[in-house]
Amino acid sequence: MTGAAISIDRNVSGGFHSVTAETGQPQGEAFAVHGAVDVAGACAAADAAFDAYRATDRETRALFLERIAEEILAIGDDLILAAMRESGLPRARLEGERGRTVGQLRLFANVVRAGAWLGLRVDPALPDRQPLPRPDLRLRMIPLGPVAVFGASNFPLAFSTAGGDTASALAAGCPVVVKGHPAHPQTGALVADAIRRAVAACDLPEGVFSHLVGPGNDLGGALVQDPRIAAVGFTGSRGGGLALLRLAQTRPVPIPVYAEMSSINPVLLMPEALKARGAALGQAFAGSLTMGAGQFCTNPGLVLAVEGEGLDAFIAAASSAVGEADAQVMLTTGIHDAYEKGAAALVGSANVETLARGKEGNGCTRGQAALFQTTAEAFLADKALGHEVFGASSIIVRCRDEDELRSVIAGLEGQLTATLHMDGGDEAIAGRLLPLLERKVGRILANGWPTGVEVCHAMVHGGPFPATSDARTTSVGSLAIDRFLRPVSYQNLSAALLPVELRDEAGGAPRLLDGVLTIN
Amino acid sequence: MTGAAISIDRNVSGGFHSVTAETGQPQGEAFAVHGAVDVAGACAAADAAFDAYRATDRETRALFLERIAEEILAIGDDLILAAMRESGLPRARLEGERGRTVGQLRLFANVVRAGAWLGLRVDPALPDRQPLPRPDLRLRMIPLGPVAVFGASNFPLAFSTAGGDTASALAAGCPVVVKGHPAHPQTGALVADAIRRAVAACDLPEGVFSHLVGPGNDLGGALVQDPRIAAVGFTGSRGGGLALLRLAQTRPVPIPVYAEMSSINPVLLMPEALKARGAALGQAFAGSLTMGAGQFCTNPGLVLAVEGEGLDAFIAAASSAVGEADAQVMLTTGIHDAYEKGAAALVGSANVETLARGKEGNGCTRGQAALFQTTAEAFLADKALGHEVFGASSIIVRCRDEDELRSVIAGLEGQLTATLHMDGGDEAIAGRLLPLLERKVGRILANGWPTGVEVCHAMVHGGPFPATSDARTTSVGSLAIDRFLRPVSYQNLSAALLPVELRDEAGGAPRLLDGVLTIN
Repeated sequence: MTGAAISIDRNVSGGFHSVTAETGQPQGEAFAVHGAVDVAGACAAADAAFDAYRATDRETRALFLERIAEEILAIGDDLILAAMRESGLPRARLEGERGRTVGQLRLFANVVRAGAWLGLRVDPALPDRQPLPRPDLRLRMIPLGPVAVFGASNFPLAFSTAGGDTASALAAGCPVVVKGHPAHPQTGALVADAIRRAVAACDLPEGVFSHLVGPGNDLGGALVQDPRIAAVGFTGSRGGGLALLRLAQTRPVPIPVYAEMSSINPVLLMPEALKARGAALGQAFAGSLTMGAGQFCTNPGLVLAVEGEGLDAFIAAASSAVGEADAQVMLTTGIHDAYEKGAAALVGSANVETLARGKEGNGCTRGQAALFQTTAEAFLADKALGHEVFGASSIIVRCRDEDELRSVIAGLEGQLTATLHMDGGDEAIAGRLLPLLERKVGRILANGWPTGVEVCHAMVHGGPFPATSDARTTSVGSLAIDRFLRPVSYQNLSAALLPVELRDEAGGAPRLLDGVLTIN
Repeated sequence: MTGAAISIDRNVSGGFHSVTAETGQPQGEAFAVHGAVDVAGACAAADAAFDAYRATDRETRALFLERIAEEILAIGDDLILAAMRESGLPRARLEGERGRTVGQLRLFANVVRAGAWLGLRVDPALPDRQPLPRPDLRLRMIPLGPVAVFGASNFPLAFSTAGGDTASALAAGCPVVVKGHPAHPQTGALVADAIRRAVAACDLPEGVFSHLVGPGNDLGGALVQDPRIAAVGFTGSRGGGLALLRLAQTRPVPIPVYAEMSSINPVLLMPEALKARGAALGQAFAGSLTMGAGQFCTNPGLVLAVEGEGLDAFIAAASSAVGEADAQVMLTTGIHDAYEKGAAALVGSANVETLARGKEGNGCTRGQAALFQTTAEAFLADKALGHEVFGASSIIVRCRDEDELRSVIAGLEGQLTATLHMDGGDEAIAGRLLPLLERKVGRILANGWPTGVEVCHAMVHGGPFPATSDARTTSVGSLAIDRFLRPVSYQNLSAALLPVELRDEAGGAPRLLDGVLTIN
């Protein structure tokens, strides 16, 4: 398919500029600022493409996802260079992120092929049942409709234009309209072009994918309010996520919003582990905290420990490592400003002790790591101490005993993760804490750091509000396809009218046949 | 477990009365009017019971659901007599509804045993993977927390105190706080007592189930706003559902609301079927329309047909049958008043022709059936003609051609069902309409009537807004358990700490092992 129904991204006068993260200075030609007409055009194209796209067979859709991965790789080093310049993130990290991005597209290709997401159910007719016969009933999941995806600033590849939300929505059969993050318009344009090439190569309707960019919030607001948009995926700030959620809820027809917003990811230091290796844990913690300037949704922003042997060693080692940490370029001047403001508020807080600050930076966007400590009592008394400071800032909360530790956990808001550092002798206390942690988080991990988020089948990157706006789903891993689906039931339809996958002779996808799971 | 933490339902002075549907008159002793203290008590008990209840093994939970069914049956005819008096529904219908209620509890018992709802996923560690090892990751679904269930008036057993929402929430592991419908407090109290006996017999915490009653809306509002409530199930009016939705969304921690609200369930008469059996269809349609005074969520309130042979015969037969239909006692005087008001508005509407009214009633709550017709043009021009009139009222929309029929369908709000009456020669047109219908409804049926809702695995009783507030789930059938669950991921947890069902040696529930579905 060809044509120019959807505006092109760049070289339009009166546009906005890509900014180099390290200098905060604009660079290169201006990008188009998309407006209401572009939103309406993209949404109309997505809506027009929906029925044809959702009717594609599974192999076609899988090949499309794999083609997007190939086209992204085909961009070559230009993509890495653009993302490095716009995000300030180092080459190794961005090369890894590119691998994650294409790996995630290929994972969803295989998920589409396997077909479990169709949720097939068949209850055959029981014509002789008393007192009433049972009709033939069959169920499948269908895609919700066009999805608006908001790219995140902190993963310019894996959570942005061709990131997890785009991959899972396309896998589900939903056309996607991306609102690109203004912090990386060049990176976004390169990836959007790659997706468009894949759309064309697979002979899909152009409206399957659109890319809108602009510096302000109006664009995103208009997108969420367009009546043709059926769901929203978002990764970003709490304020931004809640604003989109409100817009979506007050539409004439409300729609689901999957916003991943805010988390401080408590790390719990269990007594025996602390006793055995407090200093080593402190050192490793600082590494997780300061990696990538701390700009991870799962950054360990909170450490909880009961007073006891090893805690001082942990604190000494962590403080020393944080103190030696180089200042790192942050994603944008706005994020850097917010980080420094948040850290300064903690420095100035009466009941908080500043344990360490990282080295001072020599650039306008370099974030200086920060480590604080306070008491459980002070933490419980001041809700502000539990708010996310996006960046390499963390606060250690010292608890008198297990009861106080439980109170601190119980008082936490919903989180993406909780981490337990524990030894064999800690199993009893960890077992007591688990039910409490399950009610607060989407992922519980032992003896690791929350900042690695594996893209696989058993991953949950989600959690109770306000970590996300909808704890019933995940934004990472193959389960994410479910968030863009809804069930439809077919009663007594002739074989000719039934969706192909629900016909008696269809194979290749699991089905619940009269209540019994069968893999055919 | 014993005690009196939760208030008892009846015999409290200053209470409200059960009303006999046929007379609109109060009868018997007064029921307690529960207030804020009772809401707080019930929610605290539910919250306290949550961890113990969700930790029960599957067999214990299944036996509990089966015990509730037994206890309901053990009430005997008193339950049928109470429901007949309070709802005005006939004995045969209520005996059938009781069968459906206990059947649904037993269905969920078997769903709990089968364990597919756990959504188990295991991605084993890959310690040698390059460039980074993969940790061990395991996922299961856990219950959301205490659920508030709002009983519906039109199914005093199957959609009320021990109805589908209660059964599916308890199956998922969620304690339930029922806000009983004030139209059937005696029926509700009998069922609530039966559930409490089952709770005691199974040695479960008392807070697993609570029952609150009162005549006003404040009680329900307080319940939805209680911070311990994690989700809401509701079946009732659009106004009621939307009010609860708003309350849930504006809580400090928003929660999911599953409100089933409003549907007119279009019936499409395809040309060949109409030609072959217009009169027979008209007669059968009137039967579906007037059954149970039309008080079904899936009542066929809209008939769509293209002008052609057989349509006049359909209309003549339907009009004649509706004209001969006896007036029937409606559930409450409020519902009867709203019905007569809605029907009168259609009678007085300029572009609507009244085809038939049923026989006049001789009681204050007897609804008189009503059949109308209009043109597609008029229907498209006046949104009010597409609003639900809860009761035995339906409107036939005559379309000039398939294009106009498509326009009418495209203009409809979300619906629970769409019905196709068709013959073999109609498959082409039906096939063209299906994608459009899939985007509007939760269930598509052929050559039947939407008023029978089978409780099985492949049923969807749900649909796009405003049929429900959340099209991603169903309120009838085994899939309903999913609405009360959310995923949690466990990374590198020792076997001792892992939930039993996620351990390597666990069997008895399907799991996705490294991406491959296995039934063990």
